[in-house]
Amino acid sequence: MRTVKLTKEAISDILETMLQRSPGNYGAYEARVTEILRQVRERGDEAVFEYTRQFDKFPADASNIRVTEEEILRAYEETDPALTEVIRKALVNIQKYHEKQKRNSWFDTSGDGTMLGQKVTPMEKVGVYVPGGKAVYPSSVLMNIVPAKAAGVERIIMTTPANSEGKVNPAVLVAAKEAGADEVYKAGGAQAIGAMAYGTASIPKVDKIVGPGNIYVALAKRAVYGHVSIDSIAGPSEILVLADETANPRYVAADLLSQAEHDELASAILITTSEALAERVNHEIHNFLQTLSRREIIEKSLDNFGYILLAKDMEEAIETANAIASEHLEIVTRDPFYVMTKIKNAGAIFLGEYSSEPLGDYFAGPNHILPTNGTAKFFSPLGVDDFVKKSSVIYYSREALAPIHKDIIQFAESEQLTAHANSIRVRFDEES
Amino acid sequence: MRTVKLTKEAISDILETMLQRSPGNYGAYEARVTEILRQVRERGDEAVFEYTRQFDKFPADASNIRVTEEEILRAYEETDPALTEVIRKALVNIQKYHEKQKRNSWFDTSGDGTMLGQKVTPMEKVGVYVPGGKAVYPSSVLMNIVPAKAAGVERIIMTTPANSEGKVNPAVLVAAKEAGADEVYKAGGAQAIGAMAYGTASIPKVDKIVGPGNIYVALAKRAVYGHVSIDSIAGPSEILVLADETANPRYVAADLLSQAEHDELASAILITTSEALAERVNHEIHNFLQTLSRREIIEKSLDNFGYILLAKDMEEAIETANAIASEHLEIVTRDPFYVMTKIKNAGAIFLGEYSSEPLGDYFAGPNHILPTNGTAKFFSPLGVDDFVKKSSVIYYSREALAPIHKDIIQFAESEQLTAHANSIRVRFDEES
Repeated sequence: MRTVKLTKEAISDILETMLQRSPGNYGAYEARVTEILRQVRERGDEAVFEYTRQFDKFPADASNIRVTEEEILRAYEETDPALTEVIRKALVNIQKYHEKQKRNSWFDTSGDGTMLGQKVTPMEKVGVYVPGGKAVYPSSVLMNIVPAKAAGVERIIMTTPANSEGKVNPAVLVAAKEAGADEVYKAGGAQAIGAMAYGTASIPKVDKIVGPGNIYVALAKRAVYGHVSIDSIAGPSEILVLADETANPRYVAADLLSQAEHDELASAILITTSEALAERVNHEIHNFLQTLSRREIIEKSLDNFGYILLAKDMEEAIETANAIASEHLEIVTRDPFYVMTKIKNAGAIFLGEYSSEPLGDYFAGPNHILPTNGTAKFFSPLGVDDFVKKSSVIYYSREALAPIHKDIIQFAESEQLTAHANSIRVRFDEES
Repeated sequence: MRTVKLTKEAISDILETMLQRSPGNYGAYEARVTEILRQVRERGDEAVFEYTRQFDKFPADASNIRVTEEEILRAYEETDPALTEVIRKALVNIQKYHEKQKRNSWFDTSGDGTMLGQKVTPMEKVGVYVPGGKAVYPSSVLMNIVPAKAAGVERIIMTTPANSEGKVNPAVLVAAKEAGADEVYKAGGAQAIGAMAYGTASIPKVDKIVGPGNIYVALAKRAVYGHVSIDSIAGPSEILVLADETANPRYVAADLLSQAEHDELASAILITTSEALAERVNHEIHNFLQTLSRREIIEKSLDNFGYILLAKDMEEAIETANAIASEHLEIVTRDPFYVMTKIKNAGAIFLGEYSSEPLGDYFAGPNHILPTNGTAKFFSPLGVDDFVKKSSVIYYSREALAPIHKDIIQFAESEQLTAHANSIRVRFDEES
């Protein structure tokens, strides 16, 4: 992996390079997605079935689009019981962590007869999209469903493409059932997003759509945003390890590789104050590479978006970590808790040498759906907050309104909103 | 205003009609906005200045794009001191309410050496867009800036178009200064959004852009979403009054009119269980209309999107209110607090006959930037949460990782992510 001394120019070059991973030009796909959404909106089920036949080769109709109880039972039979057991153990942790995120409605009263507050209400219906194809991630099914469930969402819909025989990956179905999906539909791509956004006879309209997908899915979600809510746009995965001379180079190397294996656009970066560590990590990466099954992907990812950055001190290292705003940040230093207090931008922060990133992907409890590509500067991990909404609550008595009513009238009139002023005035003009 | 008996068909017709207010086809503007953003991204200041000269007729350059301290002092001199005083009084309430929304980071430990938590961090830089033109709303300046400030955002940038003499509305500048804007730039339209999204020599890049604007501004915000964060897409204003026979028809009529005056797409709806109230409200609307300065707008808005809906009982009325999911919901019934517990979808809820909607627009403290057009089903009022982001925090000791490390390896291997499995394995393989 290339080693670079940190300078202002180096950082800005790296940030430029990282950003190139977000495809800016979707032109070729956009027209296609717009057309699919229009068809689904206008023709409902009929369009969804046609596209499903065309793209998934599955002869979908109203009788077979929904996964049945029998299919779910069969999925359990076809899943390694040891994996089902691991899914259940992970689920307990994920549920526990997300339960802690729940927020109460609150209100506040004052002596003069006012009450102000915020009412927190779960969304009613949520749709979870689960991609099909070769890369199947039951862990992501858990991570999408659990926060919605913890938020109190009444009805959780899942859509995922089936194969030509109408079969959905068994481990995905097991994860969905365990996490609490209420209904699963065999639909994929932009047509599935359209169905959940507009509703069809078979597939219900939801309030929010979450979950990753290919370019068609991403564009369709962006297009229906506003009509329903969506989660934030996911990009290629990233890890940033912030380490000093106390770090174990084997662990650091293994963790960098764990993200690089995701795909060729993944990024793995080490920032260290120790040249000795940098050299040893490079050496360990070389050793591990010989043994890993996804070596080709890893090599490409490291070539394109892998860096070892040498910082002159921990302060510069931290500043750079904040500038990169990585999806995953491991802090492997003498005092990781102290360094953490200085971190402003990161999706998930892993402290110390046993908090390896895959622990967070699968098991610890925090969500693995995290902001990528610098967006940790303004986006958060998927969580309970993403499945509730708030209403302001305002109560004023006559006694509370009286002393300020003329102020409100003046403010409204300064904005030429005379009917606004009038609605306050009528409550007091009987007196005069 | 037309009076309609509530039926399933009536509700679905009304919802259809309301949704027609969201412009679906931006085709003609989109290409223009894309070009403006591209120019700003590539040529920075130069492009911003050119467009500002072209659209605002203001000869902008690096020396005059930023509002100076002298201009702000002059704005205070030009603003009615009584209005400045009202702005200050409102500000105290708005600040107090938003301070209450602040959330702490939290963490949780277990005996076996784990710590899990969420670190809450304010965004660093936020951009507030304030429209120019005839309709000038200092109250919106407060509502956009205060939550960012309460969240702890370090640097709040504001952009607003100046007139051809380079002058910005004085009350807007006073509101900006009072609320705590750090810098104000004279730029408007898609070019201002581009400048804040990409950064130019004069105008800094921000993490999030908030604030209303015309179609160019709305499209530009949507286009830069993902590169920076944006607030939710605002639509035409709405009020829904839920009232029984105890309501004062004059107050109800005045409040319905107060929203109808915003623009011709605004919507004012009364749902009531009392036919007598319905008649009297209609009569009062007629009376008020003779006296209001924005009568023409109000009449159009009521003709197109005004309804009096007769419900057979309070339950049906509440159900309909939840289906409409209004921006503003007034509950004027015998027991408004009880009814409020059954409300799922509303931007802001006003309880009882003295909690008139303009009280919330200007003074009570809650934000007046609210989800419109049914989006209260999934969006929330602008608030402190919109200006912070969370990072998950994970710490596991060796003792905590040891008993579960094989589970993680199994889960990772089931997803064919062998480098993930490897990063857990290396931490324990020295033992074997």
